[in-house]
Amino acid sequence: MKKYFVGVLVVAATTTAAFGQSKKSNSNKDGAVSSINKHQTELTSISDKIWTYAETALRESKSSTELADYAEAQGFKVKRGVSSMPTAFVAEFGSGKPVIGIIGEFDALPGISQKAQPTKEPQQVGAPGHGCGHNLFGAGSLGAAVAIKELIASGKLKGTIRFYGTPAEESVGGKIYMTRDGLFNDLDVCLDWHPDSEIAASTQSSQAMVDFIVEFNGKAAHAAFDPWEGRSAVDGAEAFTHGVNLLREHVKPSVRMHYAIKAGGDVPNVVPEYAKVWMWIRDSKRSVVDEVFARVKDIARGAALIAGVDYKVTIQTGDFEQLVNRTGAEALQKNVEALGPIAYTAEEITFAKKIQEAQNLEPTGLDGTIHPLKQTKEDPDGGSTDVGDVSWNVPEISLLVTTAPKKAAWHGWAVVACGGMSIGHKGLLFAAKALAMTMVDLFENEQLRKDVRAEFEKRKGNTIYKAYIPDGPPPVPAN
Amino acid sequence: MKKYFVGVLVVAATTTAAFGQSKKSNSNKDGAVSSINKHQTELTSISDKIWTYAETALRESKSSTELADYAEAQGFKVKRGVSSMPTAFVAEFGSGKPVIGIIGEFDALPGISQKAQPTKEPQQVGAPGHGCGHNLFGAGSLGAAVAIKELIASGKLKGTIRFYGTPAEESVGGKIYMTRDGLFNDLDVCLDWHPDSEIAASTQSSQAMVDFIVEFNGKAAHAAFDPWEGRSAVDGAEAFTHGVNLLREHVKPSVRMHYAIKAGGDVPNVVPEYAKVWMWIRDSKRSVVDEVFARVKDIARGAALIAGVDYKVTIQTGDFEQLVNRTGAEALQKNVEALGPIAYTAEEITFAKKIQEAQNLEPTGLDGTIHPLKQTKEDPDGGSTDVGDVSWNVPEISLLVTTAPKKAAWHGWAVVACGGMSIGHKGLLFAAKALAMTMVDLFENEQLRKDVRAEFEKRKGNTIYKAYIPDGPPPVPAN
Amino acid sequence: MKKYFVGVLVVAATTTAAFGQSKKSNSNKDGAVSSINKHQTELTSISDKIWTYAETALRESKSSTELADYAEAQGFKVKRGVSSMPTAFVAEFGSGKPVIGIIGEFDALPGISQKAQPTKEPQQVGAPGHGCGHNLFGAGSLGAAVAIKELIASGKLKGTIRFYGTPAEESVGGKIYMTRDGLFNDLDVCLDWHPDSEIAASTQSSQAMVDFIVEFNGKAAHAAFDPWEGRSAVDGAEAFTHGVNLLREHVKPSVRMHYAIKAGGDVPNVVPEYAKVWMWIRDSKRSVVDEVFARVKDIARGAALIAGVDYKVTIQTGDFEQLVNRTGAEALQKNVEALGPIAYTAEEITFAKKIQEAQNLEPTGLDGTIHPLKQTKEDPDGGSTDVGDVSWNVPEISLLVTTAPKKAAWHGWAVVACGGMSIGHKGLLFAAKALAMTMVDLFENEQLRKDVRAEFEKRKGNTIYKAYIPDGPPPVPAN
Amino acid sequence: MKKYFVGVLVVAATTTAAFGQSKKSNSNKDGAVSSINKHQTELTSISDKIWTYAETALRESKSSTELADYAEAQGFKVKRGVSSMPTAFVAEFGSGKPVIGIIGEFDALPGISQKAQPTKEPQQVGAPGHGCGHNLFGAGSLGAAVAIKELIASGKLKGTIRFYGTPAEESVGGKIYMTRDGLFNDLDVCLDWHPDSEIAASTQSSQAMVDFIVEFNGKAAHAAFDPWEGRSAVDGAEAFTHGVNLLREHVKPSVRMHYAIKAGGDVPNVVPEYAKVWMWIRDSKRSVVDEVFARVKDIARGAALIAGVDYKVTIQTGDFEQLVNRTGAEALQKNVEALGPIAYTAEEITFAKKIQEAQNLEPTGLDGTIHPLKQTKEDPDGGSTDVGDVSWNVPEISLLVTTAPKKAAWHGWAVVACGGMSIGHKGLLFAAKALAMTMVDLFENEQLRKDVRAEFEKRKGNTIYKAYIPDGPPPVPAN
Repeated sequence: MKKYFVGVLVVAATTTAAFGQSKKSNSNKDGAVSSINKHQTELTSISDKIWTYAETALRESKSSTELADYAEAQGFKVKRGVSSMPTAFVAEFGSGKPVIGIIGEFDALPGISQKAQPTKEPQQVGAPGHGCGHNLFGAGSLGAAVAIKELIASGKLKGTIRFYGTPAEESVGGKIYMTRDGLFNDLDVCLDWHPDSEIAASTQSSQAMVDFIVEFNGKAAHAAFDPWEGRSAVDGAEAFTHGVNLLREHVKPSVRMHYAIKAGGDVPNVVPEYAKVWMWIRDSKRSVVDEVFARVKDIARGAALIAGVDYKVTIQTGDFEQLVNRTGAEALQKNVEALGPIAYTAEEITFAKKIQEAQNLEPTGLDGTIHPLKQTKEDPDGGSTDVGDVSWNVPEISLLVTTAPKKAAWHGWAVVACGGMSIGHKGLLFAAKALAMTMVDLFENEQLRKDVRAEFEKRKGNTIYKAYIPDGPPPVPAN
Repeated sequence: MKKYFVGVLVVAATTTAAFGQSKKSNSNKDGAVSSINKHQTELTSISDKIWTYAETALRESKSSTELADYAEAQGFKVKRGVSSMPTAFVAEFGSGKPVIGIIGEFDALPGISQKAQPTKEPQQVGAPGHGCGHNLFGAGSLGAAVAIKELIASGKLKGTIRFYGTPAEESVGGKIYMTRDGLFNDLDVCLDWHPDSEIAASTQSSQAMVDFIVEFNGKAAHAAFDPWEGRSAVDGAEAFTHGVNLLREHVKPSVRMHYAIKAGGDVPNVVPEYAKVWMWIRDSKRSVVDEVFARVKDIARGAALIAGVDYKVTIQTGDFEQLVNRTGAEALQKNVEALGPIAYTAEEITFAKKIQEAQNLEPTGLDGTIHPLKQTKEDPDGGSTDVGDVSWNVPEISLLVTTAPKKAAWHGWAVVACGGMSIGHKGLLFAAKALAMTMVDLFENEQLRKDVRAEFEKRKGNTIYKAYIPDGPPPVPAN
Repeated sequence: MKKYFVGVLVVAATTTAAFGQSKKSNSNKDGAVSSINKHQTELTSISDKIWTYAETALRESKSSTELADYAEAQGFKVKRGVSSMPTAFVAEFGSGKPVIGIIGEFDALPGISQKAQPTKEPQQVGAPGHGCGHNLFGAGSLGAAVAIKELIASGKLKGTIRFYGTPAEESVGGKIYMTRDGLFNDLDVCLDWHPDSEIAASTQSSQAMVDFIVEFNGKAAHAAFDPWEGRSAVDGAEAFTHGVNLLREHVKPSVRMHYAIKAGGDVPNVVPEYAKVWMWIRDSKRSVVDEVFARVKDIARGAALIAGVDYKVTIQTGDFEQLVNRTGAEALQKNVEALGPIAYTAEEITFAKKIQEAQNLEPTGLDGTIHPLKQTKEDPDGGSTDVGDVSWNVPEISLLVTTAPKKAAWHGWAVVACGGMSIGHKGLLFAAKALAMTMVDLFENEQLRKDVRAEFEKRKGNTIYKAYIPDGPPPVPAN
Repeated sequence: MKKYFVGVLVVAATTTAAFGQSKKSNSNKDGAVSSINKHQTELTSISDKIWTYAETALRESKSSTELADYAEAQGFKVKRGVSSMPTAFVAEFGSGKPVIGIIGEFDALPGISQKAQPTKEPQQVGAPGHGCGHNLFGAGSLGAAVAIKELIASGKLKGTIRFYGTPAEESVGGKIYMTRDGLFNDLDVCLDWHPDSEIAASTQSSQAMVDFIVEFNGKAAHAAFDPWEGRSAVDGAEAFTHGVNLLREHVKPSVRMHYAIKAGGDVPNVVPEYAKVWMWIRDSKRSVVDEVFARVKDIARGAALIAGVDYKVTIQTGDFEQLVNRTGAEALQKNVEALGPIAYTAEEITFAKKIQEAQNLEPTGLDGTIHPLKQTKEDPDGGSTDVGDVSWNVPEISLLVTTAPKKAAWHGWAVVACGGMSIGHKGLLFAAKALAMTMVDLFENEQLRKDVRAEFEKRKGNTIYKAYIPDGPPPVPAN
């Protein structure tokens, strides 16, 4: 999950069985779990390879191939290079309705290479690492899809299972392009999961955000001889950031705005003709992001006037907030509860505690327990994902599974470390099972699908989905 | 002189007699000096009354009346209330060409009331005072005009003498309105003087300037409950001043920009809907002031965009730089040299030194000596005057005469003190004599008038004079 | 209520009777209500007089006298001029335990004079007005105190009733000085009410805040001639406010910071030697206010270094957040429910709707209904009061009563208008009755007093109360 | 010349022969010129090689070797790697007094690779280029030294000639380290020249400057989840630059301050823990640079307080203003006049005009004429050099010679182009001759040496020279 956080949620609410799910055994769920157990070595091996490749956004060719080849080998029809992204693919099995989708990510993060050990030590200094656990995410989701494929193949379920290999979650948001191209439109329901530090059928939204660049172009001059002939682009950037900081008083407390000054002059001796600010705006609501973004564009225009320079605002990407689906979450919660807690070995717990100590955290170890379903907060904590965009086009059910110690920093070495050993593997397999079981429910239970969609329609309301991304294929990020 | 400074000038140049002026006695000059000696008690008495009235800009009704009544009593035809200013007047005597003008100011400055003593003590706390010596200026110039009137009346000179009672030099610039209305247009030459801390036929320009208000209008809101509903006008002012400070790197070293934040919110608890910045821009050249002003208006527009508020820029007034006339200055210099140094009594010198000591200055006393004519600096030191505007419409000859100790701060109590006692009186009489003698030259010597005008035309070049002031009569300033 | 807002609260929770209160009639409560009915003309007359006096903070001599004289006339012992404030007083009746206090405010707000009519029109332009309804507050609370006094006098209740006449709520916070001096220390429980746009036994806290001045002292210089000799105090203020705006990103969303630039230079022509920023910091927690204030003091110090000037931070006043007492609120709620809704006449509803229309609000009229007790929000909406300080020294029970139309702006003309006619009077009398009835409960029911105190002790915890105010008597504000 | 500019100088003054130099032929001067003519192919070939090497500061190993080897081959004793700089060397010939030094530079500038053609086209994109003509500078000075060496070797002159190979003029200032180590101390006089767009015995100073880094270190935090845990180093940088821009009003017009923001955050999503500003301060006087630097260090401290971060100011280098030596310049001027104008071919003129057209300049071609000696300006135009530091330790005589078209931008491709072909070669040879002839004067004329030193002592006054550089060897710059 791009821009991740570890949520701390406080209020529990009881739920009641609603869709005729019973606690008695379901042979298809048993079959799904058996399938995952059967393939578990393959799945963790795929995860470990992707962990080793550690390929960043839109450069995930080996990782994508690993997953797509496996899907093909399992009998899926695979379309590669969808939505103009060479590493995006769709793998499908079966036919007719219902059509259930499941998402898998596989991109790494730059600069956080780490060995699978509880102390900080890069495998290769400056190289990327899987600091958000996407190696687990992709392999786990594919494991669930394979389990359903086998049930369809054996005639036990009817319909279509589709796995989405979605690249570049950490940068441009591959799913946004796939959403724009309608690739999710015929799904009844879509599922996903994400590595986390606790297990939860997700009932929380994420933050909508827009990621953009503000550039200023002035006129160079000798800073000592005739600075009056120059127009400083850095002046533009400074007026801009000052304006953004003035704006902070006049946005709702749920808004977040943050930026980095990526270019601010080369040498003192020249009035700088170029400056660049990279900025994100986030809020619980895309509509608020839009409002604030309009204000920030005015600030950029005003700053350019102040500095007497030209300016340009370029959207890089942007996520919608995720539409929560509590109906789906309740169905998922049943299966999570049926699976029960993840048990950790003494070695795993020690591994986790060492990480916590290295990060000056309380050494609480790992949380493999099952919690009750949580209330949905009005404003989610910080964090955005392109799953949000999917969730405005099709009902989305999301799962969180423990793969890292409590409070360990995401997008950091600790998450890389755990994702390359048994702690991560256990999370991967738990996720695959819980998602496969929930897909069994969705295939078998038409009323559940209807209820899930009804909530989706209600939450979506009249909003017209319109992605932030530019036309054409996504730009490949610099790192 | 509005926005005054004490110039420090370094380079002397020798000059040679150029217009057939001889050192032998001139009976009309003798007559002029005699007239001033004859009227000296009246003149210093008028000055002292105006010093006591201490009336600020456009409120100088008693001061103006004092001068106009005296002119009328001396036989001048007086037009009062010219250019829609009740305190502006023109007093004329004689007929036909040449027409020689002389300027008199009489407005005081707010808040610097002071007794005629060498230690700081207001006559009335918070009341105005003559901190720029305009009581002396008005009376001295009128004294010179009366001397010329008597020579015309007795048939010794032919032509017209005209005294301009010009109000509000310290704020809106009364002369600018009178210039706009063409009141100086038919003059052959105009003269003026100004109190100073040394004696000089002025060869220096002054700074062009524009005086304007930038106002921002936003939207109030409760600063704790819903600040996101507000648009802060103070944010606009802060973005504006930040922009001005960024601009400082990109203007020539001769430019000066300065401002005061006159309204910046009433109470913290309300997002302020109004803010006001009062600003001046100056440079050696009106054309540069124009360029910088255009940039500053862009900054105001940009700041308003940044804060999401409305803005308004209102010009209050503005001066042209003074067109130097060295030909005229050389003629004047002759008469200054003929008069010779001002002699001070031991008491006067002690008075001056006490002031200097009270202001932590070197106690050098008074400079009544005559210096050689100075080179004209490319960039004048800081200071602006509406005489500048007159000088673009008619050749202007300016005199500085000592009325205050060396380095004493202008627009301060020390200048008020000296202007109300014999030090100021001596300057007044010296100025009246030097100016009257130079007017005798101008009446008598057609070639001098031609040479003066030729230099004027050359320096003016193709520039079209256009005042900064708004249409209609001047607004009366707040204090 | 200083810095007021109209809260919109959404979640209702059911409560159960807890202290043996029964719904059957209680003769002392009946007696209290009768007393208020008996005195109602006196009470509304006192309110109307104070409304007409409209005296601002620490200038409320007639208003204070009005209330104190009435209390004295009713048999209370009155101490005037307590805590060095001439308009502060304490009126007491009875003896021994329990001691129940009730608070009355009476200060007006500058500049919002208004007639008792539904369209904006000042009684006297620029004069103060009762835009927060404190005329009603003082008279209503005193009415409740008188009702209890009569029950004590007649032997029906035992103990002491004490009325606190608390000045200057809108500025320095009179109660903070009275709290500092221990005047509330021997109370068992204290009560208060506040005019509002709905009726509620208050279950919400208020914001803690600190109100302070930041001054910068630099060195004046001629802004055109030698600005390099100056040190601009306004530079200090600009660096300071920039710093505050940078800080906004790094404070919790519950923090509010707001300021006004009260002095920012006199004239452009002088490098300004003085600047002044007036600022408030607020948060749900006094401890967070302290943390942020420490940061802001560093910013002031840093800004002074940046500008090369001196600085000074002076605390003016500051409130603690109010400690909620839900036990007390539940007792109060019973009595509010027993009284039932306030009924309005057609004229009153029309009056309210006209106001709403004049303020571009939905014309919903007045809300006289009784709502269930609300959940306590983690962060209160914006608003601070010196009742907060009382609430950290003694258990405080607070009531809100409708005296103005829904959504009408507080501290505005609409609230003044309603406070001077029957809408305000109805609120006053309702408040007096509800508070008197609740005091009857407190006098009669020792367990209730114990439960109220137990909650107070628990919420207070280990916090040591320390007021923000300076030593000595409060400074009298400027307006 | 680091931070170079093309001076436009206006006032000419006549000078008279002062030291017994006669216009009649001097056989040693003839010998010197003959020597340079004899070696001219070697000299231009050395220059062309260094032009091709284009090595940047402290990386000039091949360029330094080229010069040092040639000196050694000519019979000089060479000390390499002086002052801990591998590319710094001193080449000496002869013995005893007088000791005359001459300086040669040879470092290139990053990023301005260019072919020897009149249109912009790099030899290698992004590679360095000789945009300040130091290839000519080093070879030309060495040619002059060789000519003197031959006169000493043949017994026609007595004393010591010393060539200083001075690296890194464009960055850390190699001469400053050599000055610190006393390498110039025993010289009677030192000479240097610099490529320019006109020929002049230099009578202008350069700007004193200090080059330093301001770093801020804060605390990272997730910018969306808990930005209140972060302390932004970029906030520090923004408060700092704001402070610098506020300071601009309060420094003399001769001061220049300029900066680049070299690090301003990596990604928006993290509160940045590191920021870096690279800044230069310049003025006509080192003492003013010191004053302003002290203010800027306060600003850095204040900005750190504002942002709640740590800061560090690190001086990188700094130049003194050059002490003009008019006595030396007058001697040099004689020889320049004796040599007469540089004649250009039609091809060379066309080459120059094409460059001017490509840069939107008036196509005036090349200025090879000889101008009268100029007045020394009070404030030099923008530009600094480490020759300034030498000039405070020993009398320095400086020459400018045309090697580029009028107004072509220095530190740009046009200067690189001309330095690699005949226009540059002509300048090199002219410089070598003029300097060698002037050294003949200095060797032969003891009175000239005394007069030159007397002026040096007078201008230096009581100032104690203290370099800005840190202890130890210079840091090697990044590029």
